[in-house]
Amino acid sequence: MIVEIINKKRLGRALTYSELDFFFKGYLNGEVKDYQMSALLMAICIRGMSDDEIFALTKIFIESGDILDFSDIPGIKVDKHSTGGVGDKTTLVIAPIVASLGVPVVKMSGRGLGYTGGTIDKLESIPGFRVDLTEEEVKKQVKDIGLVVTGQTADLAPMDKVIYALRDVTGTVSSIPLIASSIMSKKIASGADKILIDIKVGKGALLKTKKDANKLSQLMIKIGKFYNREVRTIISDMNVPLGHAIGNSLEVLEAIDILRGKEKKSNLVDLCIELASEMVSMGKEISKDEAVKLVKKSIKNLSAYNKFLEMVEEQGGDIKGIKVNKKVQKIKASKYGTIVAIDALEFGKLSVSLGAGRINKEDSIDYGVGIYLEKMVGQKVRKGDVLARIYSDTKFEASFIENIFIIE
Amino acid sequence: MIVEIINKKRLGRALTYSELDFFFKGYLNGEVKDYQMSALLMAICIRGMSDDEIFALTKIFIESGDILDFSDIPGIKVDKHSTGGVGDKTTLVIAPIVASLGVPVVKMSGRGLGYTGGTIDKLESIPGFRVDLTEEEVKKQVKDIGLVVTGQTADLAPMDKVIYALRDVTGTVSSIPLIASSIMSKKIASGADKILIDIKVGKGALLKTKKDANKLSQLMIKIGKFYNREVRTIISDMNVPLGHAIGNSLEVLEAIDILRGKEKKSNLVDLCIELASEMVSMGKEISKDEAVKLVKKSIKNLSAYNKFLEMVEEQGGDIKGIKVNKKVQKIKASKYGTIVAIDALEFGKLSVSLGAGRINKEDSIDYGVGIYLEKMVGQKVRKGDVLARIYSDTKFEASFIENIFIIE
Repeated sequence: MIVEIINKKRLGRALTYSELDFFFKGYLNGEVKDYQMSALLMAICIRGMSDDEIFALTKIFIESGDILDFSDIPGIKVDKHSTGGVGDKTTLVIAPIVASLGVPVVKMSGRGLGYTGGTIDKLESIPGFRVDLTEEEVKKQVKDIGLVVTGQTADLAPMDKVIYALRDVTGTVSSIPLIASSIMSKKIASGADKILIDIKVGKGALLKTKKDANKLSQLMIKIGKFYNREVRTIISDMNVPLGHAIGNSLEVLEAIDILRGKEKKSNLVDLCIELASEMVSMGKEISKDEAVKLVKKSIKNLSAYNKFLEMVEEQGGDIKGIKVNKKVQKIKASKYGTIVAIDALEFGKLSVSLGAGRINKEDSIDYGVGIYLEKMVGQKVRKGDVLARIYSDTKFEASFIENIFIIE
Repeated sequence: MIVEIINKKRLGRALTYSELDFFFKGYLNGEVKDYQMSALLMAICIRGMSDDEIFALTKIFIESGDILDFSDIPGIKVDKHSTGGVGDKTTLVIAPIVASLGVPVVKMSGRGLGYTGGTIDKLESIPGFRVDLTEEEVKKQVKDIGLVVTGQTADLAPMDKVIYALRDVTGTVSSIPLIASSIMSKKIASGADKILIDIKVGKGALLKTKKDANKLSQLMIKIGKFYNREVRTIISDMNVPLGHAIGNSLEVLEAIDILRGKEKKSNLVDLCIELASEMVSMGKEISKDEAVKLVKKSIKNLSAYNKFLEMVEEQGGDIKGIKVNKKVQKIKASKYGTIVAIDALEFGKLSVSLGAGRINKEDSIDYGVGIYLEKMVGQKVRKGDVLARIYSDTKFEASFIENIFIIE
């Protein structure tokens, strides 16, 4: 039976719900072995999955764990998910914006692994900030101030977690149906009414082409329809890092700068306005244009920033305590030119090597280290201009870091 | 590096010799895990392999074990391999024929697994027959009488064995490049000068279509050329069982009947003459027509049978001691008609359930049990005619067995 199911997929035929259910549940209880699951996953990667197979797998993932219910909190709950990028601190910016406009936000985030950071790690760089709220605390806080960002309170789609760990070491990560099932099962189990997905494309992202991003987008919208959840997607560039800062404390400080209106123009600011406006449009059922106006106003009149401070206070944090590494190395340009590219993936890897991220799950993080890009793509530089500041006790060969900027 | 190699194959790109070598050797030493190997094998199954990849993998398999050398035995050593079928006892018939015509035969055979039997198990149904000769004994016997059939004296392509065991449980058996590498590596390591491959096609075989059989044939001839070995192939039908008997003792007795000229016409007799003639043609470098004449003569004048008896005596066996199960159930036709098909796979499975074969490697075998088909495809039957005799203490529902014959 196990081998017959693998053979069927190998030949490109669609599996039934009961075949998928037997196989994936069998994996959790040990009847289906690692090497059999990885063979099936590879066959799925290459042969693809039908819509019915994807709906079935999503259902199996969802039902493997808890399903949250926030229906007793008034208003439309809109959740946002990003497929992961270097320097992505959008949640820190948009959650307070959206909440300040009266749309309740319950955001359960994860930790970083590999070269992409995690919102929970970033928030933990705020001394005292609690990310382990109970379900009751979450509900109380969202009723009180309309905003919570915390770790998962429940065991959402645990089967997906196990499968993802196997995919990671067997070259079976890049399957659009598997990515779609994985994300959508967690989002549906987390009890959101509507879901916004930020699909990253480029060198620093899982998906390398716009074509794949479009496929993933269509698939997630379809899964949403199947589960009666409105899903919108934004496809955003991840060839260059998002914003100036990479590293936990530095990223929180950058988010605060945006919320205080001190940083007004960057790819990060644009994306935050875009994402927040979509969420407000979904949550308040208004046009995107109207939503954009509200979002910009909430930054300008500091209501978003105040909402952020409210959340930090509720969750026990103190932003005055945020610390960055004392030693800083300035990387200066050795020639004149224009920055035409900044390799997000390379900076992601560098940030991990500084200690800002994890290679293995159990690695600990140094919140204060990181990279601050002084110059962005499109800017002209002269010899001697500071390109970047490296917050680390380790001293780097300047040319190594300068070369991550492509200057022409 | 491991995941990168899997990803490369997933995307359909050819792996280099050093990538394959790193991955497969890494598997033997534990660096590459089962679940990673099975993912790569699945990618190979679906994406295929280039000729260079197949040559490389064959080389890696060969060099994982011993390489035999029979160059000190005069004459051209021709080896024969069958891709495995139900009721296939051709080796027992053709090895003595070929040897009786002066072509030295050193045949190292295997045990059965699943619904196809193994020559070594069949020979062990001859009481006293030794199948564990040493390399020295093999060389002495082939010098003395020109014929040995025994188990492997050396560790030939052990990596192939390990990989095959994994393929068996991960739905990755049906890859023509992997089948070709697996067979050819063992045959080249076993020291043959020329190789004849009997490729089985049909319900009772690994390959289900003539098209796949042709692909495998071309590939094995190519690998042979690369290693400077003449390879010929015969594509033979395995929709119906080969000959009348399925089961170890019964098959040896049927082989003896053919060698003694008592059984002159069956699909088995035809195939034995075909295979023996090809081997004689290769070994004596004569035309196929000439070889056919010599083969038929060697049966008629009993020189092949006498060679068989010589071998049995040399290896300590006694054919008078061959025993079949005492209890026999006759399966009679319940209607009039013509037999249009006999499902080889079903009879193969039945023979395993009787105890004639193994499901797991460590299972023991009952040599005396088996099936004797009284009627063959194309024959007319009347109600009450005996279709088959089942040698077993278990009594079967007659209609269950009658239904394996398709009578119209």
